[in-house]
Amino acid sequence: MPHTTAFARNQWYVAAYTYEVGRGLLGRTVLGEPLVLYRTEEDGAAVALSDRCVHRYFPLSESRLDGDRIVCGYHGFTYDRTGTCVRVPGQKRIPRTARVASYPVVEQDLFVWVWIGDPALADPGSVPRAPHMDSPGWTTVSGMEPVDADYGLLVDNLLDLSHETYLHGGYIGTPEVAETPITTEVDEGAGVVRVSRHMDDAECPPFYARSTGVRGRITRWQDIEYHAPCLYLLHSRVAPAGVPPEADGSDPNAFHTEITYAITPSGEGAVYDFWAVSRDFARSDDEVSSFMRDLNHTVVMQDVDALNLLQRALATGRTGHQELSINIDTGGLAARRILARLAEEGDKPVERAR
Amino acid sequence: MPHTTAFARNQWYVAAYTYEVGRGLLGRTVLGEPLVLYRTEEDGAAVALSDRCVHRYFPLSESRLDGDRIVCGYHGFTYDRTGTCVRVPGQKRIPRTARVASYPVVEQDLFVWVWIGDPALADPGSVPRAPHMDSPGWTTVSGMEPVDADYGLLVDNLLDLSHETYLHGGYIGTPEVAETPITTEVDEGAGVVRVSRHMDDAECPPFYARSTGVRGRITRWQDIEYHAPCLYLLHSRVAPAGVPPEADGSDPNAFHTEITYAITPSGEGAVYDFWAVSRDFARSDDEVSSFMRDLNHTVVMQDVDALNLLQRALATGRTGHQELSINIDTGGLAARRILARLAEEGDKPVERAR
Amino acid sequence: MPHTTAFARNQWYVAAYTYEVGRGLLGRTVLGEPLVLYRTEEDGAAVALSDRCVHRYFPLSESRLDGDRIVCGYHGFTYDRTGTCVRVPGQKRIPRTARVASYPVVEQDLFVWVWIGDPALADPGSVPRAPHMDSPGWTTVSGMEPVDADYGLLVDNLLDLSHETYLHGGYIGTPEVAETPITTEVDEGAGVVRVSRHMDDAECPPFYARSTGVRGRITRWQDIEYHAPCLYLLHSRVAPAGVPPEADGSDPNAFHTEITYAITPSGEGAVYDFWAVSRDFARSDDEVSSFMRDLNHTVVMQDVDALNLLQRALATGRTGHQELSINIDTGGLAARRILARLAEEGDKPVERAR
Repeated sequence: MPHTTAFARNQWYVAAYTYEVGRGLLGRTVLGEPLVLYRTEEDGAAVALSDRCVHRYFPLSESRLDGDRIVCGYHGFTYDRTGTCVRVPGQKRIPRTARVASYPVVEQDLFVWVWIGDPALADPGSVPRAPHMDSPGWTTVSGMEPVDADYGLLVDNLLDLSHETYLHGGYIGTPEVAETPITTEVDEGAGVVRVSRHMDDAECPPFYARSTGVRGRITRWQDIEYHAPCLYLLHSRVAPAGVPPEADGSDPNAFHTEITYAITPSGEGAVYDFWAVSRDFARSDDEVSSFMRDLNHTVVMQDVDALNLLQRALATGRTGHQELSINIDTGGLAARRILARLAEEGDKPVERAR
Repeated sequence: MPHTTAFARNQWYVAAYTYEVGRGLLGRTVLGEPLVLYRTEEDGAAVALSDRCVHRYFPLSESRLDGDRIVCGYHGFTYDRTGTCVRVPGQKRIPRTARVASYPVVEQDLFVWVWIGDPALADPGSVPRAPHMDSPGWTTVSGMEPVDADYGLLVDNLLDLSHETYLHGGYIGTPEVAETPITTEVDEGAGVVRVSRHMDDAECPPFYARSTGVRGRITRWQDIEYHAPCLYLLHSRVAPAGVPPEADGSDPNAFHTEITYAITPSGEGAVYDFWAVSRDFARSDDEVSSFMRDLNHTVVMQDVDALNLLQRALATGRTGHQELSINIDTGGLAARRILARLAEEGDKPVERAR
Repeated sequence: MPHTTAFARNQWYVAAYTYEVGRGLLGRTVLGEPLVLYRTEEDGAAVALSDRCVHRYFPLSESRLDGDRIVCGYHGFTYDRTGTCVRVPGQKRIPRTARVASYPVVEQDLFVWVWIGDPALADPGSVPRAPHMDSPGWTTVSGMEPVDADYGLLVDNLLDLSHETYLHGGYIGTPEVAETPITTEVDEGAGVVRVSRHMDDAECPPFYARSTGVRGRITRWQDIEYHAPCLYLLHSRVAPAGVPPEADGSDPNAFHTEITYAITPSGEGAVYDFWAVSRDFARSDDEVSSFMRDLNHTVVMQDVDALNLLQRALATGRTGHQELSINIDTGGLAARRILARLAEEGDKPVERAR
């Protein structure tokens, strides 16, 4: 039994960073659907088509672009940016049904978002925002790791940061993270889970000590905002211990870091882990950028290794998986409820007024 | 769902080249049946036995020959060339049922053909011919690649050469191959499919330019003759553009190449791709032999990579595989019909007069 | 169909050598149950707990020890040596049900024995003995190899030593082993199978020639004593040909070697092959120790390769596995009957008087 969380189909998912989509053909699989992505010459738009030729199912991502058309690498079936077949070998007549699916795309906040479900429900205005990813005032480092684990395990991981103390000790974890109780708020309707942990007097982990230059004890706030199913924001505030924001809401004496994850189910037991770190300090300092990229990559790989291991442990378990949840799991359990509801809704027939 | 074409059991299949079968033990699997092949000291004949000892199922191909007998590498059960057990450890009495299956073998045209189905139906006279493989007047280079794909995908591949333009461009493909319509003839009774493409004014691809020395445009004929299920012949004629055969049928100004494939299903989703190129020109020129061997091997590996990829794409497809066929597929679709009929016939009980 | 012999759960199994269990965390899987083993600081006892945290199923063997407590490497759930959870992150209250299974352990004869079945039936007095493993008067070399094969195939292998002649020829096998008939005694009630082969005039294989220094023909006795399911003892006596034990039972002119195997099913199609060689001669000679360790390791690896191969052959067999058994298999067939009975008994509800 592979451990599997149901997919919520009628939702936006990150398929790539905008900088990954260019004049090559990029293959990605989202919710089990193979996609090919590229950017048009005509107007620079990102295009997402089904990655299987209608003729004999060859992956179009293993093909080549001719202008804005994909020429299948096997027999030359040629598709325009809408997925319509415009050329076949050996004959003039093109079968009327020759087309591959085209998926709605929104480029926003450094992400290429795609919609796999019913296209009639794809509202570009409902794509959740992460403006710090690509705004003046912020500097961002980013990457992506494929994980051989159910995406629900990554959601669990990120909603419960007490694991920083144990899995990421010496990098981003200190004893105070696991010791400090959390507060959790759930907006079931909006599908948003908020988990906060405010540490008033904590050790400064190397990740922040070296990037901010702060010495001594710190005030450390972690405010998670999870927009199910795909977007996870961690608002992080680090300041010398006892230094609060100003009365007017400004916060000149603190260091702000936005840690962003996009959690995109690829297939059963497979998830893309898009990760980014945006900061409002030392913004032009390349050394700080390198340090934060390298250290965060190390932290992400600690998670990747743990989740791969966990997936295998769950798959080989002789008896049913019995969990025991405590307070720290409140956010994760709320997220699971919301994901289950979104998955169920995505499977229902939809009423439409047209 | 692995993509699988049913096996036609009562048919001849190539298990090896004659030069592969010698005084070692060669393991091959044909239609899912593990075989061990060797050549006898007694009369130099090729022998094909079941590759599993009757005692504890150990692969005999991992054993050794003692004269013309195989001595099982585990406990020493010993079999003669008919598959009869002639010695067991620790006792004189040999159980009456101790024998492994022996398969009919025909050596012809550089191939070792075997018959996996009902031995009573194995007619050596019905083995299809490829005499150029091993005739004076022809020089042949050959090889074999195992492919992790349904054998039907290899049949599809070879029956539709329009893919040469896209998958093998710069090697054997030119634009004219995909552009030129084909003619198809099907002999359902004999199980033979013929697909012809005659290009009167075509670019000469590197494979022929360098081996023949022809410069400029060419007349290029491709005449496929597929003897389902196993033997595929491609009669290739290359001549300077506009040069036809003589009125008397002789063809002194053209270069003839016979491209031979034996398509042997190994197991589900696994096929042996035996390939050979025979030529009637530059017959003693080792440089031409090396060039044709190397370049054809490269072309075969392009197919192998594509078919492995395709098999995986078909296996992971979320929804049913939907194909769209056009004129170029006429030969391949005919081949599939014939294979389905042969497979069905092989499953029926057979009436025999004895 | 993977080839699988049913597991007998209410039995003692070797999980490790005593020297493998220390202050690190050792992960082993026995009868499909993941275990973590360590040795306490408090009293040096070996502990075996379930290797899955109750919280989110993380492998405890990938964690760390804090004194005699395991701190889970994911979220810090902490367990004492009885498996009771004594600390959880972010709260004082520990859920009453927070505990992982603890398995009965007996350390004896260099082995760490564990009991996976009903703990109420675990009688430390019923652990079978191999005193030569760790006694004055004997010197032992040992190792362990995981095999990707059904444990029944290893039992088959060891109960029928005629394979020494073929699989281990030139190491421990000579023609006489396969030629000499065996005697078999079965004690169904005690679950013990005895297979003896006494060779009065045999070639001396390199394993004994070089370690004992005996030249010329030998008397070679092999007396197997298999205590199903886990412990296999081979009492080996080598003496110059024609030299019997003394009338009083002493045997000063012979070389005695005790070859011990512990056969521990890990999961379906996976078994731990613990092997040891104890000798009563040249006891302080390190060169003899090195030689016997290296040569026996080579022999074990010949078995490992053969069994891995056999497991794959059985898994891919098109038709049902048909065996043919002869006299040499009497011991192995008796062992299978006993294993089947023990497995069946282990599945029954047990009557207990308390």
